[in-house]
Amino acid sequence: MTTARYIAFEGLEGCGKSTHVTRLATALGAVATREPGGTTIGASLRATMIDAANTMLSPRAEALLMAADRAQHLDELVTPALQRGQHVISDRSAYSSLAYQGYGRQLDLAMLKQFNSWAIGNRWPDLVVYIDVPLDILLERLKKRELDRFEREDRSFFERIAHGFNEMAKGEPDRWLIVDGTPPKDELAATILREVTSRLNFATQ
Amino acid sequence: MTTARYIAFEGLEGCGKSTHVTRLATALGAVATREPGGTTIGASLRATMIDAANTMLSPRAEALLMAADRAQHLDELVTPALQRGQHVISDRSAYSSLAYQGYGRQLDLAMLKQFNSWAIGNRWPDLVVYIDVPLDILLERLKKRELDRFEREDRSFFERIAHGFNEMAKGEPDRWLIVDGTPPKDELAATILREVTSRLNFATQ
Repeated sequence: MTTARYIAFEGLEGCGKSTHVTRLATALGAVATREPGGTTIGASLRATMIDAANTMLSPRAEALLMAADRAQHLDELVTPALQRGQHVISDRSAYSSLAYQGYGRQLDLAMLKQFNSWAIGNRWPDLVVYIDVPLDILLERLKKRELDRFEREDRSFFERIAHGFNEMAKGEPDRWLIVDGTPPKDELAATILREVTSRLNFATQ
Repeated sequence: MTTARYIAFEGLEGCGKSTHVTRLATALGAVATREPGGTTIGASLRATMIDAANTMLSPRAEALLMAADRAQHLDELVTPALQRGQHVISDRSAYSSLAYQGYGRQLDLAMLKQFNSWAIGNRWPDLVVYIDVPLDILLERLKKRELDRFEREDRSFFERIAHGFNEMAKGEPDRWLIVDGTPPKDELAATILREVTSRLNFATQ
């Protein structure tokens, strides 16, 4: 039996994360979940955070709410699943906080790292799958959606976030797997499964 | 015109804070508010935090939610009121986080101080009125209430919090005003008004 692994998908809105979290979880028999909102309490926080009516939400409050959601998610869902021996595949993780609230909102990155690390009991994902899709394609996809509070941000916000993800991926190449998110769904799902399996086997041998 | 001041009331459940926040705010023509819950967003967070059904709420998530509420409260309500020249009287402040989540839940106090200070932009209250009532009297008063998630905690939890408040008050005697909370309401309200006025005049001369 292999050690249970905690895998997070990261990327910008519209990159296909949720689809591929489900696909990979099904293929691996893993628990599929998401942040924010993977728990009952988290779902109510998620609603507060993404509600487009909450334009008054302070950036620091947003960052702390996200961290609260992550703390709850780790304690209630991720850690118990891993302890039972199940892989966990999560749509987003604390890295999204660094990318969105740090690079995107330009809050103090060192402070964000510190309290997010504390929030998750220092349990960062073993592997991060970053689905890389050019911003122009993503913005085109978002035009077809009813936009939430994050999706309504301007282009420069998403540019800063994409830059942040790339910086983090470059800084920890063993933990981050960057996949080109432009191929058709089935092809991308197959690539992700192959690459993740290869990395997991490598890590657990 | 005196400088606008930010005054917080602190104390255990049932000590009479909310009554005396209202009394003092009326006497001084100040804005009366509270944490958690002083803003629309904060009210929804407060509901999540005090709901007795949320027994699953992780202690770290609770601490981060409280800090999120405080960040929102400072940015949306406290700071703008002070900038308009109005005194602000708040039922609780970030000191409650140190007392409840730090001393009470025994989370890392240094970490709590760090992210709470960041949450409030380092704007701690100018004056803290601590209403001191013996624990036996408070527990007697709580028997008459429908208890929320905090009020259902055991005696040792409240003992640790009372100890925490006393430690903080001793550490910053210029900022903390300890009042005996056992006299009748009207008498206590008069004492608080007299003492606070004296402290404020002293501080602004």
